[in-house]
Amino acid sequence: MQTETTLLLLDHIGVFFFAISGFLAAGERNLDLFGGYIIAFITAFGGGTLRDILLNTDVAWMQSLSHVSVVIIGATVGLLFKKHLKKLRKTFFIFDTLGISFFTIVGVQKGLAHDQIAVTAIFLGMISATFGGLFRDVLCNEIPLIFRKEIYAIPCLTGAGFYITGDYFGFGSTTWLLTSCVALIAIFRTCAVRYNWKMPIINELKL
Amino acid sequence: MQTETTLLLLDHIGVFFFAISGFLAAGERNLDLFGGYIIAFITAFGGGTLRDILLNTDVAWMQSLSHVSVVIIGATVGLLFKKHLKKLRKTFFIFDTLGISFFTIVGVQKGLAHDQIAVTAIFLGMISATFGGLFRDVLCNEIPLIFRKEIYAIPCLTGAGFYITGDYFGFGSTTWLLTSCVALIAIFRTCAVRYNWKMPIINELKL
Amino acid sequence: MQTETTLLLLDHIGVFFFAISGFLAAGERNLDLFGGYIIAFITAFGGGTLRDILLNTDVAWMQSLSHVSVVIIGATVGLLFKKHLKKLRKTFFIFDTLGISFFTIVGVQKGLAHDQIAVTAIFLGMISATFGGLFRDVLCNEIPLIFRKEIYAIPCLTGAGFYITGDYFGFGSTTWLLTSCVALIAIFRTCAVRYNWKMPIINELKL
Repeated sequence: MQTETTLLLLDHIGVFFFAISGFLAAGERNLDLFGGYIIAFITAFGGGTLRDILLNTDVAWMQSLSHVSVVIIGATVGLLFKKHLKKLRKTFFIFDTLGISFFTIVGVQKGLAHDQIAVTAIFLGMISATFGGLFRDVLCNEIPLIFRKEIYAIPCLTGAGFYITGDYFGFGSTTWLLTSCVALIAIFRTCAVRYNWKMPIINELKL
Repeated sequence: MQTETTLLLLDHIGVFFFAISGFLAAGERNLDLFGGYIIAFITAFGGGTLRDILLNTDVAWMQSLSHVSVVIIGATVGLLFKKHLKKLRKTFFIFDTLGISFFTIVGVQKGLAHDQIAVTAIFLGMISATFGGLFRDVLCNEIPLIFRKEIYAIPCLTGAGFYITGDYFGFGSTTWLLTSCVALIAIFRTCAVRYNWKMPIINELKL
Repeated sequence: MQTETTLLLLDHIGVFFFAISGFLAAGERNLDLFGGYIIAFITAFGGGTLRDILLNTDVAWMQSLSHVSVVIIGATVGLLFKKHLKKLRKTFFIFDTLGISFFTIVGVQKGLAHDQIAVTAIFLGMISATFGGLFRDVLCNEIPLIFRKEIYAIPCLTGAGFYITGDYFGFGSTTWLLTSCVALIAIFRTCAVRYNWKMPIINELKL
């Protein structure tokens, strides 16, 4: 019960920060207020929506007034405090990273719950965490960030693979497996940004 | 029975005008004939398709030969009369606005029929009416118009909210509620264009 | 049984070549390694995924480890041999054309198996074959190629129509109908490229 509540809380926190970052991104791209709110929604829910559509199941947020409310509140916080928020880069980074880490594991779990094969469940985890940002970039008419610059998806894939392995050995949904996978993704991504790890550009590779 | 026929007729009229405007938009972006027809389809059916996919139900137009025919006819009218149509801006605006107004209410009704919560049903109405145009813009490699310039979605959201309220008080699907919601959206949008109402750009807001 | 095996083999070959061409396209657009693999997946599976989502059924590749593996192998071949592959334009063209031809017919068959009307089944065939490339272009921030330059979709529509006609007269799924439809699409597309057939640009048409 307590774990359930913790997970639900983490989920809402992730959605809240995704909504803020989506709204701020829309502001930077000169969108109007309406565009800001829509991009906030799409950043927060886009990945999970694609996951649920691929699983041919009900889309999770559609039945959840609390999730929808959290996005509206997040976007409004983004609107009211946009100047201050831009200074809080570190705080942001922490919550954004936690959001990604958490969404990945939720996605993997949902994939497994729907009897997907391991590799598909791993993809679903990565899609849950990163495709909201991908849709945001496509709608803002940019090449998605995750294809160009940031080590973003690799930590998700790694953490998802670790979770699948743990689940295979019977530790699925245990608190320690959840915690260690979220930590693994968060630490991997933090190191990637801290030490400026980058994926090589295909055309610069000499093979 | 008569209402049913009226609704079906309105639906086809909306699709017809969306197809024309999609085809003309493709022409302006230097696409070829094939691109024109596809953009006509996506403009006319895109919003409803996303609504039905989100509802995890059958996509409405796929089983309807008449809807598909109307898009093909609409796009062909767009092709044959493109010069003349560009002069008929006002006629166009009227039918486009009626199409949006009508699609919004159809979307809300379908959401309610699938037991969605009120706020989700409102979103589904707005998505039905506006996401065809959003997909059109993304495929033409532009930032969606509804994020930048026109007051487009707000009238839809307002009308959808009005319908939901009426439905809550037991007037759902009554002719007068349908008519007044369609009228509300159409009048709101007409005023928005007539008096040049715009959503504020996020970064120009001083908060 | 033998036909079944042949179809499955053709399907994997098509996926393999779509993955290679997706990866190479990502390379040309300066994406990183991760982007290359994702674009390979989306090019190979995008069309079929949209087809299955529209049909409101399970997405085919998600339960198939062999399909996922073939994409990973294809993208890796693209990575290791990118210099050599660029010289093999003709070989590429042949397999790409066969892939498109084959995917079209698979899409039509799946549409018919799900009781779609003829025109929708034809669209589903075309979507299966061409929307992977369309998603690739949208993600790479370009106007889709099939809207601008190449005669690509018309052969698919023609072959799909031919298949539907044959199916209507009771020859559905026979080897000769499958073979002749695939051949029709492949030959049509080859002629289109060989003789530089193009769809007219809408705005250059005088009507």
